[in-house]
Amino acid sequence: VAAASSGNHAQGVAWAAEAHGARAVILMPSDAPAGKVAGVQAFGAEVVPFDRGHADRDGLLAALAEARGLTPISPYDHPQVIAGQGTAGLELAAQAAEADVAAADVLACCGGGGLAAGMALAFAAVAPGLRVRTVEPEGFDDMARSLAAGERLRNAAATGSICDAILTRQPGRLTFPIIRRLAGPGLVVSDAEALEAMALAFRHLKVVLEPGGAVALAAALFRPAAVDGGAVIAVATGGNVDAATFADAIGG
Amino acid sequence: VAAASSGNHAQGVAWAAEAHGARAVILMPSDAPAGKVAGVQAFGAEVVPFDRGHADRDGLLAALAEARGLTPISPYDHPQVIAGQGTAGLELAAQAAEADVAAADVLACCGGGGLAAGMALAFAAVAPGLRVRTVEPEGFDDMARSLAAGERLRNAAATGSICDAILTRQPGRLTFPIIRRLAGPGLVVSDAEALEAMALAFRHLKVVLEPGGAVALAAALFRPAAVDGGAVIAVATGGNVDAATFADAIGG
Repeated sequence: VAAASSGNHAQGVAWAAEAHGARAVILMPSDAPAGKVAGVQAFGAEVVPFDRGHADRDGLLAALAEARGLTPISPYDHPQVIAGQGTAGLELAAQAAEADVAAADVLACCGGGGLAAGMALAFAAVAPGLRVRTVEPEGFDDMARSLAAGERLRNAAATGSICDAILTRQPGRLTFPIIRRLAGPGLVVSDAEALEAMALAFRHLKVVLEPGGAVALAAALFRPAAVDGGAVIAVATGGNVDAATFADAIGG
Repeated sequence: VAAASSGNHAQGVAWAAEAHGARAVILMPSDAPAGKVAGVQAFGAEVVPFDRGHADRDGLLAALAEARGLTPISPYDHPQVIAGQGTAGLELAAQAAEADVAAADVLACCGGGGLAAGMALAFAAVAPGLRVRTVEPEGFDDMARSLAAGERLRNAAATGSICDAILTRQPGRLTFPIIRRLAGPGLVVSDAEALEAMALAFRHLKVVLEPGGAVALAAALFRPAAVDGGAVIAVATGGNVDAATFADAIGG
């Protein structure tokens, strides 16, 4: 029995709930791509839409869990979610070692910071030469500004970027101290740069990326001067993109 | 110094030639996707277009090699090309063993038969429970008909399918006896089914496939009754597809 909130994370929760015979109720923004909603429903989960622009997501999640007797699962601010996303860091560290890369900036998309925090913890344990760099869309750079300020700051807007998977109001309470301690300064890219990265991944990597999943690749392409470490590793995450958005991105 | 003919193979030849400081002249159909031509030229190769509908490709390749003093490299009918494509079979056999799959039909796209022949030889050596099944587009089912007849037959047409990478006139002289000895009956899918497989790969696998690279997945989806072996393995090959064709396939 679980309730979760938004993003690619929702599909994972729905999958895990089905595998364990538990009921999943997923709180998703009403402007989430149709493919994401269908992906969650395919695992038997109930989707409860909310207005990303006005609602207090954390409050909604708590109220929904309370009303229905569910266990709330944040998409990022939960120790086990952070640890689970950190397994991507363990895989990446193993692959970097195979490629003889001991020191690199690792660019990772950042919403609430679960992936970045989890990977940073993994690197601290097994690959101290790898350093996480968060990447966010313009206008939703709460993590970059918070890292610069040393405290959690909020975004003015809640909607207005195509990078729907990583639009959060502010860094997580659990994730921010981890990222602040272990990661480098945050990077920011535009929606247009994310779309160009999607087109490059289509043409050269033959991989389908959604806008929010392409921001790290965009930073590698368009912010080379901001990256240190000799090698650059970009984490490509998520391909839950509608056909029309993808066709636009690739120029089809 | 090398001359090669058509398909995804061309990019590999151009890459290898550049890596060895050799000159590459690539004979490519004049209707090849722009992305394929650009991909070959990016490695410094010269592209010589020919009319797929009327020209004798093997004769053209021989004449070009003779006139320019080049070594002709067929995209399929060459022992080292077959052996190179067979390495995909070695990788696949290792992955199947890891997944505890000892017996399966392995669906592979088929033009001249280089990939199918190479994989069949690999399976015979290291994974005898894996059996190759060639997959071709409707109207270009020379391999399926040749396997049924026990001799090499030609296609009536040279153009007319979107699966440009695997349109050949007839099975290779070297590849056909290998495939006849080791593979099962050939499978055939329509262009529409290849496009549906591309859309499925986009939605669920997050992989970019070109039409000719999606026919094996299409056979797995649309010809289940024709497949034996308990498990089915579909080899997805090639994502050199123009943005407009891809957008059409995914419904964007």
